[in-house]
Amino acid sequence: MKAKGTRFERELLGMLWKAGFAAVRVPASGAMSYPSPDIVAGNGERYLAIEVKMRSSLPLYVPKEDIDRLEKFSRIFGAEAVLAVRISKVGWRFVFPELLKRTKNGYKVDEEVFYSGLEFDELTGRYRQCRVV
Amino acid sequence: MKAKGTRFERELLGMLWKAGFAAVRVPASGAMSYPSPDIVAGNGERYLAIEVKMRSSLPLYVPKEDIDRLEKFSRIFGAEAVLAVRISKVGWRFVFPELLKRTKNGYKVDEEVFYSGLEFDELTGRYRQCRVV
Repeated sequence: MKAKGTRFERELLGMLWKAGFAAVRVPASGAMSYPSPDIVAGNGERYLAIEVKMRSSLPLYVPKEDIDRLEKFSRIFGAEAVLAVRISKVGWRFVFPELLKRTKNGYKVDEEVFYSGLEFDELTGRYRQCRVV
Repeated sequence: MKAKGTRFERELLGMLWKAGFAAVRVPASGAMSYPSPDIVAGNGERYLAIEVKMRSSLPLYVPKEDIDRLEKFSRIFGAEAVLAVRISKVGWRFVFPELLKRTKNGYKVDEEVFYSGLEFDELTGRYRQCRVV
């Protein structure tokens, strides 16, 4: 599970560099007590703090702490908080925390949330898609 | 040597968080082929890509590749490139690459360069010191 997670973090890292972002992977903290995302990326205009989650199927449940940590880091750093969700045989979608559905103990990405997320080209494009809610 | 380097990277990471920056340590790449600094930090206004070097004494010689890599990452990411130099019993100074002295195969931090570097409070202060060259 952890090795797999690492593989997909690497995959996303490569996609970001290809799309004109400089990106670094942040090792799982362990000893460190600072909040940190899985990937930090920037292209001189936009800065992204990315938490990567992969699952074989939806829904994906995300502990509240993960999102709190991601948002705290992003706020201090000056980055957009992004949840990168990779579903097997489906691919990537990029969800901003405000789109997540609350559960009792955290958040949920169901089909509706997943498909309302951005595709990679939308996330990294120079323009920001205007969404009609 | 590597463990020691890691220890001082952690020390600097703590100093940055205390000074209001969100900062992450980037693991030594190894397999990865992307240019990356030792630390990436941001405070919503300024973004820093930091290469950390520690030595028992000066001068410090830095391979050209290290600086090229740091500057390339910084340019793409949108960060200021900073060489963080820690000398035993003396402490930290923060040197911008343009202040380095060229050598045949790279760059050099001698006493003059080291003491023309910024102190930590100058680096992380909200104001940017105005230097008289």
